[in-house]
Amino acid sequence: MAKTPITVAYGDGIGPEIMTATLRILEAAGAELDLETVEIGEKVYKRGIDNGMDPKAWDSVRRTRVLLKAPITTPQGGGYKSLNVTLRKALNLYANVRPTVAYSPFVETTHPKMDLVIIRENEEDLYAGIEHRQTQQVYQCLKLITQPGSERVIRYAFDYARANGRKKVTCFVKDNIMKFTDGLFHKEFERIAAEYPDLEHETMIVDIGAARLANMPERFDVVVMPNLYGDILSDVTAELSGSVGLAPSANIGDGFAMFEAIHGSAPDIAGQNIANPSGLLLAAVMMLIHIGQPAVAEKVHLAWLRTIEDGIHTRDIYREGSSKKLVGTDAFADAVIERL
Amino acid sequence: MAKTPITVAYGDGIGPEIMTATLRILEAAGAELDLETVEIGEKVYKRGIDNGMDPKAWDSVRRTRVLLKAPITTPQGGGYKSLNVTLRKALNLYANVRPTVAYSPFVETTHPKMDLVIIRENEEDLYAGIEHRQTQQVYQCLKLITQPGSERVIRYAFDYARANGRKKVTCFVKDNIMKFTDGLFHKEFERIAAEYPDLEHETMIVDIGAARLANMPERFDVVVMPNLYGDILSDVTAELSGSVGLAPSANIGDGFAMFEAIHGSAPDIAGQNIANPSGLLLAAVMMLIHIGQPAVAEKVHLAWLRTIEDGIHTRDIYREGSSKKLVGTDAFADAVIERL
Ligand SMILES: CC(C)[C@H](C(=O)O)[C@@H](O)C(=O)O
Ligand SMILES: CC(C)[C@H](C(=O)O)[C@@H](O)C(=O)O
Repeated sequence: MAKTPITVAYGDGIGPEIMTATLRILEAAGAELDLETVEIGEKVYKRGIDNGMDPKAWDSVRRTRVLLKAPITTPQGGGYKSLNVTLRKALNLYANVRPTVAYSPFVETTHPKMDLVIIRENEEDLYAGIEHRQTQQVYQCLKLITQPGSERVIRYAFDYARANGRKKVTCFVKDNIMKFTDGLFHKEFERIAAEYPDLEHETMIVDIGAARLANMPERFDVVVMPNLYGDILSDVTAELSGSVGLAPSANIGDGFAMFEAIHGSAPDIAGQNIANPSGLLLAAVMMLIHIGQPAVAEKVHLAWLRTIEDGIHTRDIYREGSSKKLVGTDAFADAVIERL
Repeated sequence: MAKTPITVAYGDGIGPEIMTATLRILEAAGAELDLETVEIGEKVYKRGIDNGMDPKAWDSVRRTRVLLKAPITTPQGGGYKSLNVTLRKALNLYANVRPTVAYSPFVETTHPKMDLVIIRENEEDLYAGIEHRQTQQVYQCLKLITQPGSERVIRYAFDYARANGRKKVTCFVKDNIMKFTDGLFHKEFERIAAEYPDLEHETMIVDIGAARLANMPERFDVVVMPNLYGDILSDVTAELSGSVGLAPSANIGDGFAMFEAIHGSAPDIAGQNIANPSGLLLAAVMMLIHIGQPAVAEKVHLAWLRTIEDGIHTRDIYREGSSKKLVGTDAFADAVIERL
């Protein structure tokens, strides 16, 4: 098989450790990848590049069209733009796909049956980056919702549901208050839903939707929503499934794709070989499917599942009694490799 | 004792039933109230008053300065303004106080130790009501955060914590993205926290904060946040405590106050005598404290608690096994009255 070129960024904090673990597993599994490593994040910001990614890194991503990215640290203080947001917008990655699955009884969770996917609009909303100070005392940020932006992520959600054997698509909006912006998202949802009569659909006001999601995540299947709700609620569902450390995400556009864990760079535990590489590894599994290597993807996924089922757990999900062995990042990767 | 004049609005859907139950209990408890009943909600909207509250109702509230309000139904379709939001802004009710407590083992909950108060900014943020269509395809809503608006709700949160024997105030913001607006809220929080050295304080990014709140609500005490986050997350915490039907809220300003349940008018179960009046009743308890009748407040609160502890439960919290008796709205009120 021809090797697929992909761009890899090790990031900051725990990034290098979990990326090393992930790439070792991919290699052992026989993934056919031609890796181009680029530097992004804290060091690049500190070189004065305000979005944290230097021109060479952009060149690589533009060429490979696929980025596997570890979390980065954005330096504190003014002037720095979020690289995540810059990448999503520059590469037009309009759909952020965030599955969360409970791995009960192997990973402790209050919701053993949860198995849902949040599909988060990824470029608009309050993330459009239009914010200003009107006076010393008055600040404003613009929430932007467009028809094309809503249509494509909603269509993506229905197509995703269909392609993945899902039955229902739920939409979260707050259109009792934001009648124009969230109203538009809602209207597009209803319009597009009508084109998918084989799938159920429903809409909830985001407040009560969030309450149900937190209390009965097992009743949801695919859930599509504007950017900021998706940011908040995908962290909620991931944590409820057992740990934010388990949750992957795929940022998808028509030309490019970026794969990452949903968690941050966790500088407080960096360099200690204790971080859970699962979020990034499962993102890499989504990447393998995306680039047309589904057999390797399945192999990695199964080996990972067996590791979790065998009770070999990193600190974040380790529980006295139900877990069998507490391991660090490297040993976890070794255990996955043994099970390939 | 002189009777305190208050304005009462029965609202729509289940509103009249839960208000009747609540007022019966208050009367039986000996609350010294001089009730002025006003009409608000669906019927008023349909008379062509676009904010759902007619001039006479405004007069009453302006006079009594205290409104006990049942949920209302805003008619579907264009042009109607949310009366909740209109009231909050017209009466300058800047702090929305939303306690959630678990009543374990009497009410089933995954978080038996939760006992927290969300204090939600109540006038600004995306609720400022500045929204427009730029083109057929592009819609915008303005998120507004001001220094005075942030200061007063944050100060309220710290004062509330101190007055109620709470230990810690947590702030939720998303200032890694909204550096100006949420950045201002965060800055005000740190500035004001410094004036309350007797209280702990901490700030979390709202995504991970929400995840922790959903997974470990017992680690929180008082949590202060901008309007929309508070809207979403107070529904989450209420549901996790057992039911949104249990949660009261107090909308507080310097001149006026409004007390209501956090749930809606639930037209689907209206007129069936099955709704849980607890949210509104507990809001009335907050009202009694506010107007200086703490002894009656305590009496009502204790009788309510005993009813819940005796397993006399409405449908939303009834569980085969742990509950003793399934009751409707009226019988629940009778049970509370018996225990006064
Ligand atoms: C780091 C941050 C900018 C980002 C976001 O807000 O989208 C993160 O929370 C995420 O969910 O990917
Ligand atoms: C009914 C609605 C306008 C209101 C809000 O969004 O504030 C409600 O959800 C609440 O939380 O009081």
